[in-house]
Amino acid sequence: MANITKKVSWSSRPDETGATGETTPLLNGSEQPRHSRQVELMSGEGAIFHIGRHGAGDLEEEMTTEEVKSEGRPKEIPHNEKLLSLKFESLDYDNIENQLFLDEERRMSYMGFRCLEISRWVICALIGFLTGLIACFIDIVVEQVAKVKYNVIKENIETFTEAGGLSISLILWAVLNCSFVIVGAILVAFFEPIAAGSGIPQIKCYLNGVKIPRVVRLKTLVVKVCGVICSVVGGLAVGKEGPMIHSGGVVAAGVSQGRSTSLKRDFKIFEYFRRDTEKRDFVSAGAAAGVSAAFGAPVGGVLFSLEEGASFWNQMLTWRIFFASMISTFTLNFVLSVYHKKPGELSNPGLINFGRFESDVGDFFTSIFHSSTVLQAELLLCLMSAVLFCRYVHRPCLQVMEATLVAAVTAAVSFTMIYFSNDCQPLAPDNTEVYQLQLFCADGEYNSMATAFFNTPEKSVTSLFHDQPGTYNPLTLGLFTLTYFFLACWTYGLAVSAGVFIPSLLIGAAWGRLCGILLFWCSTWADPGKYALIGAAAQLGGIVRMTLSLTVILVEATGNVTYGLPIMLVLMTSKIVGDYFQEGLYDIHIKLQSVPFLHWEAPATSHWLTAREVMSSPVTCLNKIEKVGTIVDILSNTSTNHNGFPVVVQVMEGDVVILCGLILRSQLIVLLKHKVFVELARSRLTQRKLLLKDFRDAYPRFPPIQSIHVSQDERECMMDLTEFMNPTPYTVPQETSLPRVFKLFRALGLRHLVVVDDENRVVGLVSRKDLARYHLGKHGLEELHLAQT
Amino acid sequence: MANITKKVSWSSRPDETGATGETTPLLNGSEQPRHSRQVELMSGEGAIFHIGRHGAGDLEEEMTTEEVKSEGRPKEIPHNEKLLSLKFESLDYDNIENQLFLDEERRMSYMGFRCLEISRWVICALIGFLTGLIACFIDIVVEQVAKVKYNVIKENIETFTEAGGLSISLILWAVLNCSFVIVGAILVAFFEPIAAGSGIPQIKCYLNGVKIPRVVRLKTLVVKVCGVICSVVGGLAVGKEGPMIHSGGVVAAGVSQGRSTSLKRDFKIFEYFRRDTEKRDFVSAGAAAGVSAAFGAPVGGVLFSLEEGASFWNQMLTWRIFFASMISTFTLNFVLSVYHKKPGELSNPGLINFGRFESDVGDFFTSIFHSSTVLQAELLLCLMSAVLFCRYVHRPCLQVMEATLVAAVTAAVSFTMIYFSNDCQPLAPDNTEVYQLQLFCADGEYNSMATAFFNTPEKSVTSLFHDQPGTYNPLTLGLFTLTYFFLACWTYGLAVSAGVFIPSLLIGAAWGRLCGILLFWCSTWADPGKYALIGAAAQLGGIVRMTLSLTVILVEATGNVTYGLPIMLVLMTSKIVGDYFQEGLYDIHIKLQSVPFLHWEAPATSHWLTAREVMSSPVTCLNKIEKVGTIVDILSNTSTNHNGFPVVVQVMEGDVVILCGLILRSQLIVLLKHKVFVELARSRLTQRKLLLKDFRDAYPRFPPIQSIHVSQDERECMMDLTEFMNPTPYTVPQETSLPRVFKLFRALGLRHLVVVDDENRVVGLVSRKDLARYHLGKHGLEELHLAQT
Repeated sequence: MANITKKVSWSSRPDETGATGETTPLLNGSEQPRHSRQVELMSGEGAIFHIGRHGAGDLEEEMTTEEVKSEGRPKEIPHNEKLLSLKFESLDYDNIENQLFLDEERRMSYMGFRCLEISRWVICALIGFLTGLIACFIDIVVEQVAKVKYNVIKENIETFTEAGGLSISLILWAVLNCSFVIVGAILVAFFEPIAAGSGIPQIKCYLNGVKIPRVVRLKTLVVKVCGVICSVVGGLAVGKEGPMIHSGGVVAAGVSQGRSTSLKRDFKIFEYFRRDTEKRDFVSAGAAAGVSAAFGAPVGGVLFSLEEGASFWNQMLTWRIFFASMISTFTLNFVLSVYHKKPGELSNPGLINFGRFESDVGDFFTSIFHSSTVLQAELLLCLMSAVLFCRYVHRPCLQVMEATLVAAVTAAVSFTMIYFSNDCQPLAPDNTEVYQLQLFCADGEYNSMATAFFNTPEKSVTSLFHDQPGTYNPLTLGLFTLTYFFLACWTYGLAVSAGVFIPSLLIGAAWGRLCGILLFWCSTWADPGKYALIGAAAQLGGIVRMTLSLTVILVEATGNVTYGLPIMLVLMTSKIVGDYFQEGLYDIHIKLQSVPFLHWEAPATSHWLTAREVMSSPVTCLNKIEKVGTIVDILSNTSTNHNGFPVVVQVMEGDVVILCGLILRSQLIVLLKHKVFVELARSRLTQRKLLLKDFRDAYPRFPPIQSIHVSQDERECMMDLTEFMNPTPYTVPQETSLPRVFKLFRALGLRHLVVVDDENRVVGLVSRKDLARYHLGKHGLEELHLAQT
Repeated sequence: MANITKKVSWSSRPDETGATGETTPLLNGSEQPRHSRQVELMSGEGAIFHIGRHGAGDLEEEMTTEEVKSEGRPKEIPHNEKLLSLKFESLDYDNIENQLFLDEERRMSYMGFRCLEISRWVICALIGFLTGLIACFIDIVVEQVAKVKYNVIKENIETFTEAGGLSISLILWAVLNCSFVIVGAILVAFFEPIAAGSGIPQIKCYLNGVKIPRVVRLKTLVVKVCGVICSVVGGLAVGKEGPMIHSGGVVAAGVSQGRSTSLKRDFKIFEYFRRDTEKRDFVSAGAAAGVSAAFGAPVGGVLFSLEEGASFWNQMLTWRIFFASMISTFTLNFVLSVYHKKPGELSNPGLINFGRFESDVGDFFTSIFHSSTVLQAELLLCLMSAVLFCRYVHRPCLQVMEATLVAAVTAAVSFTMIYFSNDCQPLAPDNTEVYQLQLFCADGEYNSMATAFFNTPEKSVTSLFHDQPGTYNPLTLGLFTLTYFFLACWTYGLAVSAGVFIPSLLIGAAWGRLCGILLFWCSTWADPGKYALIGAAAQLGGIVRMTLSLTVILVEATGNVTYGLPIMLVLMTSKIVGDYFQEGLYDIHIKLQSVPFLHWEAPATSHWLTAREVMSSPVTCLNKIEKVGTIVDILSNTSTNHNGFPVVVQVMEGDVVILCGLILRSQLIVLLKHKVFVELARSRLTQRKLLLKDFRDAYPRFPPIQSIHVSQDERECMMDLTEFMNPTPYTVPQETSLPRVFKLFRALGLRHLVVVDDENRVVGLVSRKDLARYHLGKHGLEELHLAQT
């Protein structure tokens, strides 16, 4: 892949002109070579200004043969980490403060703002409540169905063991599992492919400001919930925790908008919140509520949201997010306690509970010092995972077949391991184990391997943490780890809804406990349960690299703050060592999708770059009073598909054209739809004035330009953009360094940043892709290619 | 005070011209009426431009008689919440990206940045370690001295009780306490007045971007630590937790700079971090480490830092802050465990530990429902506190005398209460109570009131939380609450180093337990310990209003996440009800000092205002190549004392003057000191080029302009600012709304924001004071007066 990395020679190519503005997905799906987009100049009565230096040729000359070749066949490399896709739109996390918006805000009284604030709290409470309920629903359904499955298989085994025909039991088991998985896979593959996986990378992108199509729709939620239930019951090596984060996000997006576009119901409430900024805030609350319900970690949830979308920290918002998290974990706790018929205990704060650890400085230090040993191994795992995860099967039928195959193999492998295992453990006197199979063990004993496979992974993790030394046979543990590891790798990337948290925890815990047992033979003062905890943390940290929030989540899940420091050190080590080889799983995901994701800061060595080099130019500008035909032509131009247009005005008898605003494609489309033309306003005096409500009603699914009919007469009309454009867009001079542009962009959640010269003339436009292009590679600063796919 | 609130009539006064730029404290201390500063126009060969509309008269015309009067006697109202002081400088949390800085960054390799990152981590570890050690030192010294004091008094009582002369014991007690308090008060009043109180408002201001003189000096730290020890041992109603936050901040500021100006030692390390942005980051880590050491709450510490200075959220930074917190609590835990001779236990994560609470849904719900009852009472307390706190004694001798008086009264009251109390409790069989006095109790019993007064407040809080129902006599508890409440009120605001956390917790816990006991009589299912917890949370929340971070701190201190929701609900209720009457204690403090503190967001109803109304104008601008005499004159002008100067350049044959940069007073002073004049550079070719190092060496104590000698010849020289000015200052157009300006200012941590017109000409400057002036009062948006004091 290195052959398509273009080395950047800054001094020789100061005039690089990139893509102009942002683009929507091409409707015809055809490929446009990158440099061809720069030569399309439009003309029309001075209406459009193309400002900028025409250096389009420079780029082509510097390309090597390989580069040209690789650009010529982009369909063969649809997912490539050296490309940046132009198909993703950005979200607008900066309020569009146009005249309409300001008028509305000014009309609003102080009480009005108070009411808005109260509704925000109500929405957050609702989000927390519903997310908690969804978590309960998943948990209870999984438990009930798993119980039925266990009973059927147990009966079958008991019947057939005597007849010596265990293969029939195996087939029954495999068929049961496969049928669950098939249902889940069909749902995902055919109805909503975005619901595959945990959804965490998608939520990360959303909070970062990238619009992933259909990611917060109701249909996605339904498919996700059913899919998770199917894949967990189907016995795949997956968890139900990760998807909760996505589910919380969808709930939040739905509740906060007060309507469902899918169900075509508009409750006419919360209309004020129908814009990207507000919706983003609620989605981050939803994600936090999801984390909170999954791990019983409300603070961890808040930190997760902050870690992923933190350009917008704000005291009140954070407090609301925390509130949603609290409500969510409390709802789950209460409902599950009632379900388990112990309503007073409140002992289920999350879907997974690690149980309480008591602190002991001896183990504590050994944990730290031996964690490095554990880590070496974890890293190998992590690396292999990363390699194995990179699989892409794209046809839905094949996806379903693959999932079925994985389910069948999982069942077969599990069964084989149980069959050949002779690790018999005595039955506990109080019969606490729910899923026990005697198989070939003596009376009063049960097969511990069978328990490990029949148990939910959550219970296995807890028992690895807490069971007395001696409970597990090292060989069983080793075999289990290895098998489960390969199964988890294979399972990941299937078209099923499933999380990677629990498999990682389980593999790490098993591996860690194994290390603990081996050390236990040398010295008697090591508690293998604590090694399991450290191993689980290292494994999970090596895979997701979430660092801060993960530390807090794990500390909250263990309920002992003393473990904070060792867990943090382990996570740090695993991140540092892991980063040396490969990025985290979610980042790999995002990169493979070529999403223009903005990290926290500009690359360290990017002070060489200035806005002049980074920006896209020439820029398509509009006049303050513009001809309708011109606007339609610009919007219809599928080769550019710009989303933001600087509005300019002529001063000093027309020889200088200065910036006076910025308008978005979506706004122009609403204006065209309502035919807000100067001539019509004059002739039809009764025509109602366009309100902010009209924009809100169209949000977020603005119609494409093709669906709007403009007659030949109307094309000659003029449109006055004054009221609708944002009259005070943020601007930077050309000499501004990239880190400074980046900071402004990230801190304010911008979508477009206008670059102006000394006299306030538009010379370029910086969009998300222009910044995301630069990243720190092995050989210093690298520039990614832009691709239309 | 309402008479000096000027109602703002926006429509009639669009031209209000405020103070230009920012001002340093007036050296002569004389009072300059606000409007007189605007008419001083300087001339000199076209060197200075006064751009803007001359509307200075408008203000005066609208002032009522009272307003003029109140402006005429500012010395009589030195502390007034309707004024905004101009004496506070701002900190520069936006990097000054001038030519020197960019050159340095560009020269630095990727490895260089890695090394910087590693040193940041090392510094954070050091900060955590030292903060933890300071906490240990305070704790151990207090314990040892208190033990000596107790033994002396106990012996004395035992000797004299038989002789019937308890009054001698009283005198001994009072004298002992007073002498400790006198030492503490003398240290604070005569050596470092800024070390008074908890220091939390000061750290809040620092993180917000206001420079409070001497707040992070070594001397302050020494005085603070000694002062805290003295006041706690002196038996005042104070805690040692609050000051830890300030101490942590000072440690951080010291360690991160790699030198001590007070000790005149420069270790020549960490020179890169000698600027406001980096220092602020470390101070926030120090504050977090302080919280962490005080309460054993590392996550709470991180959230405290975020809550107070969160315009700068960044993943790596937050993780470093968390690391410092972890190290801090671990150091404290480890050292204290070794000190208590139980090195393996690690049971002291913080200076105060609440002990473990077990969750139980019954109490849980009652807590919630009854917390509102508790709150009503808390609020009264809170209100009274606020009134009582507003005391200001300014002469050091009087301050020491007052502190002594309080100490004597505290001792007398305590003694009286012990004397008249007949609440005898049986001695515990295992003799766990350290401080027991038999007094008039039967053998085998001890006086519980005496224990309450001799114990450290931390232990009293814990025993209120955890002791069995029936341990406390309601009458004792009621008396204790009332007495302690009045003592705490009186003590607060004394010139001693002391925190308000513990007294609040103690009062709240006593009051809550009292409610619990009363309810216990009606129903038997209420655990008074839990009421104590809820009461403590409500009381503390009502006083400090820290909300989010406080919830996490309390949850971490109780070690049970199930208490999160009730604690949060209680804190929310107490904040909502409290805000209705009065702001939080720290905010009252900040307001009384007239600090220009920027809150999270612009007031909700401020969309009416635009940059045009908010900005200061006219602005004193400098030419890119400026005459030295002019610069000296501008800097010497004590009536304006601007701190930031836009740099302009003439284009188009001199008829348009456009913005090309921004330069700070401190930079100009360094330039003058090193005589960086164009003529000298030409004549002395060997003169070394000014480096960034020269600015760093002068940081943060730049000499005043008066100390720099410029000869008459040199006055005629020219200075070239091109290399030193920030060539890309952030700008906004005049029509930008206040919320938008505010967001930009807050998100980027700006100090100056240049307002330009359509053609990039400077029309105004927005500084911190211009934004902090507007606040939401009872009657809508109010505007504060600016005052030189």
